[in-house]
Parts: sequence; structure tokens; C-alpha cells
Amino acid sequence: MSATPQLHSLDSLIANALSGKDLEEFNRIHYGRTDHHVIKVKKNSQDVASNNDFEISAYAFPAKKEDTRAPRVVKVGVIQHSTAAATDRPTTEQRQAMFNKLEKIINTAGDEGVNVLCLQEAWSMPFAFCTREKHPWCEFAESATDGPSTQFLREFAVKYNMVIVSPILERDEAHGDTIWNTAVVINEQGKVLGKHRKNHIPRVGDFNESTYYFEGNTGHPVFDTKYGKIAINICYGRHHPQNWLMFGVNGAEVVFNPSATVAGLSEHLWAVEARNAAIANSYFTFGINRVGTESFPNEFTSGDGKPAHKDFGHFYGSSYVTAPDGARSPGLSRTKDGLLIAEIDLNLCRQIKDKWGFTMTQRLDLYADSLNKATKHEYKPQIIS
Amino acid sequence: MSATPQLHSLDSLIANALSGKDLEEFNRIHYGRTDHHVIKVKKNSQDVASNNDFEISAYAFPAKKEDTRAPRVVKVGVIQHSTAAATDRPTTEQRQAMFNKLEKIINTAGDEGVNVLCLQEAWSMPFAFCTREKHPWCEFAESATDGPSTQFLREFAVKYNMVIVSPILERDEAHGDTIWNTAVVINEQGKVLGKHRKNHIPRVGDFNESTYYFEGNTGHPVFDTKYGKIAINICYGRHHPQNWLMFGVNGAEVVFNPSATVAGLSEHLWAVEARNAAIANSYFTFGINRVGTESFPNEFTSGDGKPAHKDFGHFYGSSYVTAPDGARSPGLSRTKDGLLIAEIDLNLCRQIKDKWGFTMTQRLDLYADSLNKATKHEYKPQIIS
Repeated sequence: MSATPQLHSLDSLIANALSGKDLEEFNRIHYGRTDHHVIKVKKNSQDVASNNDFEISAYAFPAKKEDTRAPRVVKVGVIQHSTAAATDRPTTEQRQAMFNKLEKIINTAGDEGVNVLCLQEAWSMPFAFCTREKHPWCEFAESATDGPSTQFLREFAVKYNMVIVSPILERDEAHGDTIWNTAVVINEQGKVLGKHRKNHIPRVGDFNESTYYFEGNTGHPVFDTKYGKIAINICYGRHHPQNWLMFGVNGAEVVFNPSATVAGLSEHLWAVEARNAAIANSYFTFGINRVGTESFPNEFTSGDGKPAHKDFGHFYGSSYVTAPDGARSPGLSRTKDGLLIAEIDLNLCRQIKDKWGFTMTQRLDLYADSLNKATKHEYKPQIIS
Repeated sequence: MSATPQLHSLDSLIANALSGKDLEEFNRIHYGRTDHHVIKVKKNSQDVASNNDFEISAYAFPAKKEDTRAPRVVKVGVIQHSTAAATDRPTTEQRQAMFNKLEKIINTAGDEGVNVLCLQEAWSMPFAFCTREKHPWCEFAESATDGPSTQFLREFAVKYNMVIVSPILERDEAHGDTIWNTAVVINEQGKVLGKHRKNHIPRVGDFNESTYYFEGNTGHPVFDTKYGKIAINICYGRHHPQNWLMFGVNGAEVVFNPSATVAGLSEHLWAVEARNAAIANSYFTFGINRVGTESFPNEFTSGDGKPAHKDFGHFYGSSYVTAPDGARSPGLSRTKDGLLIAEIDLNLCRQIKDKWGFTMTQRLDLYADSLNKATKHEYKPQIIS
């Protein structure tokens, strides 16, 4: 399977090829609703997007009216983007170039009234872990509390009264200068509400991340923000349903999956995993993936027997949102920077729990017991022969 | 969302609408491979299928060659079908009509060299649980060991040297005449190797199954057959990733999901859940769903505020297989009986575990501990505010 950055998106391919009843049927079966509930964005937002070469899409996910609770409608935004400066420039310059690019997209999100914004994994740096070089890439690691990325974003948080989730490479000075893959949650007052560290670390192909950081030690925190209960399942953690499950057990209503993943490895899994998690756990999920191809100064190999090379595969973007009832939006582009906005009613989470009963029927006690037994060294699998 | 039995399948819609590079790209991103690896079936099989109005499709899922293990190629078949007699006929007559219909399809599977065959959920009866009537539907319940369905199938097992999974309504005389939703595993010698009872029981819409039987008490058995390690996740259990997980922990290489589910409720989830399970657990999954609309003698309501009626929604078939690498086959029809055959190399399971590392990185000890805490009455979710 080869990377093909040319195709805009699978969604646009289908929308162009089908029409009338066929398109309606495709939408019903594939997306879970015949109509995408497109929301019109402001003329100014569209202009900024055009002038700065990013895409902007917005969709609504309403819920039924209730007698006992008022609607809890929030606007959630996610941003996918490519890097902004060559990887042989000083790390400080690379990061500043990223800040300059993101500023325009974040302002657009703010103008559109986005309440909660999440950026992509390790958003302020190239995804250099493929190189397995420590220098200079470890220089991108920064304090969760007051590093440059947090400083940069908290101003927008205050300006737009917005919660921002900032996935960065974290440096923990208080614990041996260790490095972590971390999502920082900045509240609408610009304060760091807390952080979550990536629970599952890949060792596959160009994703040599275990060279740099360990499995996260922050559990499965849910952040009770002004705009609902949010959590973050970072990148490779999306392959592990039990990771998604614990965020649900802890009460999450929205779970972000900030990612960096490439066409040859995972593109056919992308539409499946975050969506399955939304269904299984009755919450909203947002899959966010960077875009573009990143090139590095020195050649590296990818553990696949192929010759050394200098570039990562194609990050295919395609960020999308799934509601607790399994309905999903079309994805952002495979090739361009983009801002995806979803106007969601959080009441839908409990409504779907009541309707489908997945939390009632999940038998967590059975699995607590089974996993407890299964992790013992002397465990004998339940095999009948 | 309305039921639309007219559309043959989403897969055929796309295959007709796209061509050339576009179709290739769609296949790559959606199915996980550009080519479906179609296997030609015998002329005679195709004739029997045409004459008896069922579909037959076959696909290959090969693996890499290994130095240490020979290929373990097995042919797995699944059958989807509608009922064969009106529901006001005696239950014995209804079941016999089903046997007569199935005989032709099972013989075709045998002629094609299928090694392991799985039927749909409660295959020998209409899915009458929507009625909440105990009489006469409980009459379909039968002994797993030597009930009519087991007697009927064991002859084919011996004749074709074939393992057959038979999901039935079970009557357990030894335990208070209780009823269970059970899959019986008959080995290639016609002996009952064991059984598994549905772990998660729905209470949604027409699926009033908790009126008839409890949650299964057989754990997560994996059956070590002549043709590989198989397990069965019955119907609604597909919504629970932890159920799929435990079959994987116990070593399953193939997990069947015999189901009965309708268009209005779940059609947009169908392509997501069993596929996600194959990806997360590095095994093959087969989703099997009955077809057609079933009508009952007395009217019933569906818990949705709508007037009483006599028919279930449309069972949309669409049975499909997913490999451990996430590649999937097109689905069988939404409207016709069908036999789906997959020639799979079981070596692919471990190859993908080695490549993606999901079993290495799944941190089961963390989740055993987390779930153990979460199921305590005094549990306080990990919420940061």
C-alpha cells in the first residue's frame, strides 16, 4: 500500500461519485445519518482559511430535548496541520514558525465561538522520533506548566474563554529530566488544569517512540471543565479499547485522540478505531491527525528492510468526529491544514447510555476478575480441546 | 433512519460507482487492500447457489512465509439466511423447513472444502424475542448436546470433516430447565466439543432478550479445534470491546460474531465493531447477520412509542470477514441468503502481533487494577476539576 497525498479525501470521492438515493443510502449506512448537518461558518472565517490555505468544516450533533436537563451545547474544535519550517533550522525557530502558523487557525476557532479546542499530537515539533536521534529533537521537550507552548496557548484561552488541549513533548525536571508524551489541559482562565501522559507507546516502523519516553503514569484522568468532561487518548492508545474504556468509566463525555500516523501503516484503521470507541463508551470522540510529509537532515531506516531515507511517510490528516450514537462527520482533507468544528449537545451521551444500555450491560466485575487472573504468571487460558 | 431492503449492498454500490484509480484508492483506504483476492468457486457451487437463490463469495487472506512454521491455511465459512416457514406454523415444522433450506448451503460449503463453518445467531428459529411471548417460542429451546439442531449438524460435520458452530436457543434441563443463548461447537467427528453462552444481553427496542435468558456463565472459552483456535462472541457482545479482548487473551485466532440485528438500529455500526475487534486483538473476525423481515402472529410494541405491529425491522445481512491486519472483505448481500468463504492463513495472527505489538503494549495489569477499583461501590472516578 502506497501513500497517495493526491487524493483530497475518501469522503469527497464518494460525494462526487454518488447522488440522489444512492448517496443518501451511502450516508445512512456509512456515516450513520443521511444528512451531515453542516453548519455555515462566518464569511470572515472562510476568507482567513482561504488566504492561509487551511480548510474549515463545521457540523452539528444535536440531542433530544429533556424535561430535567437543559441542553448542554458546546462547540468543540480540532486542528490538523503540517510543520512550518525545515527540520534543519534551530528548534526554537521551528517552534516559532509553528506558533505563527497556528495563531491564524486558533483565532479563527475563537471567532467561531469554539469552547474546547484540541491540537494534534506533539503539535509544536516535527514527528522526529523516526530518527532515533536524541539531538536536537529532545530540545523540543518543555515544561507542561510554563513551557513555550503553554505560554503561547494560554493567551488564546483567556482571549476566547476557551479550554485548550495542548499535546506536547514534556520535560519533567522534577523527576530526573524525563521526557513524556503529554497532553496539557489549559482552562478558559489560562491556568493549567492538569495533564495526561500517553498510556501506550508504539514500537513499529517509524514510530520508535519508546526510544524517547515510557508508558504514561497518569492513569485515565477526566478533566471536568466549564464545557463538559473531557479526556485525551493520545495516538497509539486508540488501538487499545481498554484505554478508551477507562476514560468512559471515569465519566468522559468527549475524548480526543491527537495523533500522528501515516498512510502505509494505518489509513484503513483510522475510520474504525476512534469511532468504535465512541460507540462502545457512549461519548464523543475526535480523531486528529497531522498532515504532510516531514523530511529530516540525516537518513534513517524504518525497520522494514528498505534502504535508508530522509522522510517520514505521508501523514494523511482526515480528522473527524463521532457522536455517541455512532454517527460521524466527513473527515478533513488528507493533504491540507484544517479546522474541524462540531457543535455537540453533551446530553446525547446519557441519552444513548439509556437507549443502548452499554454501560448497564458491560459487566465490569467479570472483566476485573478475568484480567486479574489473566495477568498472573501461572495463568492458564480458558482453552477447550 | 428507515430500513431499505432494496439496496443489495454498500460494497456493490461503490464498486459500480467508482473505477480505475478512484476505486483502487477507495479499496485501499476503506477495505485495507486494493485487491479483494477473490477466489473462484466451483461451477457446481455457483449453480446450486443460483438455483436456490443464495449468494456465494470467497476471498483469500494470505500470510508471509516463515522459516519456523508451515502455513496454517484453513477455509472458514459463514452462512446468513432468512427464515423458511411462516411463524404461525408449528415450531417443529418451522425448524424442519430451516433444516431443509440450510442443507443445500451447508453441502455447498462442504463441497468447497470449508473446514470451519459458523451459522447465524439462533439460526434454527425466527428471532421471536421481540414479542415477549413465552409460548410457543420457548419450544425452540433445545439441548446443546443432543437437540435436533445438533443432531442435524453433526452428520455434515462427519461427512465433510468440518467443525461447525451452531448458535441456538439452549434448554438446560440439568439446571432448572433454564434457557440460554448458546453457541455449540461440534467437532469434525460430530462430537460436541463444548459450548459458549452469550455474555451480554440486550434490552433495546425489539431485542427484549433479557425476558428469556440471563447473561452467560461460561466465561470466554477458546476451542482448540483441528483447524485452529476459535471462539464465539454472540451478537450484542460485539458492542463490548472487553468481551472481544478476553477471547484474545485466551488465544483465539478466529472469533465469530453470529448476530441478528436490524437496519434502523445498528447498520452504521456493523462495519465498525467486529472489524475493530480484529484490529485490536490480532485475530480474524467474522460478522454474521440474518436477512429478511420476520412477521409474527400477534402484534407487539417495540418500546419506541410507535403503534403495535407484527413485523421485526429488516435484518440486513452484510456478513463479512476482517483479518488481523484490518483488511476486510466486501459484505454479503443486505437481502439474500449467502455463504461467505475465507481462505485464511492463521499465521497472520502472530505476524501482526509481532509487527504492531498490541499484545505487548496492552498493559493488562494496569486495567486489571483499574477495573478492580472501578467496580467497588465506593469508587471515586479520576476526575480533575
